[in-house]
Amino acid sequence: MKTIGIIGGLGPMATVYYMEWIVRMTAADCDQAHPRILLKSIPDIPDRTAYILGKSNDSPLPALLDAERELLQAGADFITIPCITAHYFYDTLQEQSDKPVFSMTGDTAGQIAKKGIRKVGILATTGTVASGVLEREFQKAGVETVVPAPADQELVMEIIYGQIKKGRQVDMAAFEQVSGKLLEMGAQKIILGCTELSLLEKEKPLRGEYVDMLKLLAQRAVRESGASLKKEWADIL
Amino acid sequence: MKTIGIIGGLGPMATVYYMEWIVRMTAADCDQAHPRILLKSIPDIPDRTAYILGKSNDSPLPALLDAERELLQAGADFITIPCITAHYFYDTLQEQSDKPVFSMTGDTAGQIAKKGIRKVGILATTGTVASGVLEREFQKAGVETVVPAPADQELVMEIIYGQIKKGRQVDMAAFEQVSGKLLEMGAQKIILGCTELSLLEKEKPLRGEYVDMLKLLAQRAVRESGASLKKEWADIL
Repeated sequence: MKTIGIIGGLGPMATVYYMEWIVRMTAADCDQAHPRILLKSIPDIPDRTAYILGKSNDSPLPALLDAERELLQAGADFITIPCITAHYFYDTLQEQSDKPVFSMTGDTAGQIAKKGIRKVGILATTGTVASGVLEREFQKAGVETVVPAPADQELVMEIIYGQIKKGRQVDMAAFEQVSGKLLEMGAQKIILGCTELSLLEKEKPLRGEYVDMLKLLAQRAVRESGASLKKEWADIL
Repeated sequence: MKTIGIIGGLGPMATVYYMEWIVRMTAADCDQAHPRILLKSIPDIPDRTAYILGKSNDSPLPALLDAERELLQAGADFITIPCITAHYFYDTLQEQSDKPVFSMTGDTAGQIAKKGIRKVGILATTGTVASGVLEREFQKAGVETVVPAPADQELVMEIIYGQIKKGRQVDMAAFEQVSGKLLEMGAQKIILGCTELSLLEKEKPLRGEYVDMLKLLAQRAVRESGASLKKEWADIL
């Protein structure tokens, strides 16, 4: 079996939740049927959104590249990064690696397009939205995207940074209101385009319109590790 | 802040749950307030219980020592092992490390004794029970131990290996029946002496008689990392 490499901690609970999905999606009768995992969790690196928006000159890229190199040296067979904002640096991370680095953004867009979905709404950090890192992949795949209006985007950031990352109660009414507007704009699915938003489902299941990119990443990691993927997780969308 | 090292995967879900507790117990307003974690998850190493009971000649010790050396080389400031059965090899693991290796068994016994508790029941793998790895630490701390009768011990193993490790529904009636007998024998607390048993609480809270060694380990890891421990987790017992 192959060893899953994880650059994690961005944020820390999303990384734990990602690993929980890897374990839950693996069909295993004993410990030995699970894949090996190497994790380097580096929550202290500079904030991705602040750098992308030009609010800070501290780039997280050197730390991401260090983590990647160390995981590869330690025997990771492929690299996964359960943080969508960090995919802003994806091309460089893949360039510097002789092993595959999974692109959450490209993979999700590809799967969405394959399902015949033509238009999606994106809930993500302002860093992800402003950089167009997700929109570009959907465009390449022929899928139209809509994003929240600026005031609503601020609500999304408040949910991610002011609530989830601080471990506080989430304003689900605001979350559903922003989601509702994306559906009104014609989105057939709403992309949870930040792994912190995936955590919302930890408490109670979300409606079918939401697409959890963290689960898609876990599904791919299990498949490529060579472990058995449980049948019920063969098709997530 | 110090970097937490984890030899994990024994079993995989218990490791995820341990990391979840580390994150949950950390008082943090942002990613950067969380400690770094290095995890080497090696679920494929030989089964601990089978080796301890002499049913297999495959020792998990070389793989544990490799994992420890790699974590230390990669910058871990201390080593934690969220698997109680693996503590059978604790002395060697500490001997071979120039950084502290936390003893779940010794720490738990010390904390229990400090609380004035004089007698505990132990629910653990037959490997842990047969090796006396937990009992010895409690004896050193002046705490008496009781363990299930052989037929009940088989029920405990069925819960750990036949149910939890296979991801199946747990026979809670059997679990409570075995626990009840330990209480009848005079145990003031029941030690969840296998990290797989800690997972029982993931679904619904257990009664106050149970002591979760995984939470105690997470508490210590957060404290020693230099991160802030949430006030409500300052005293677990």
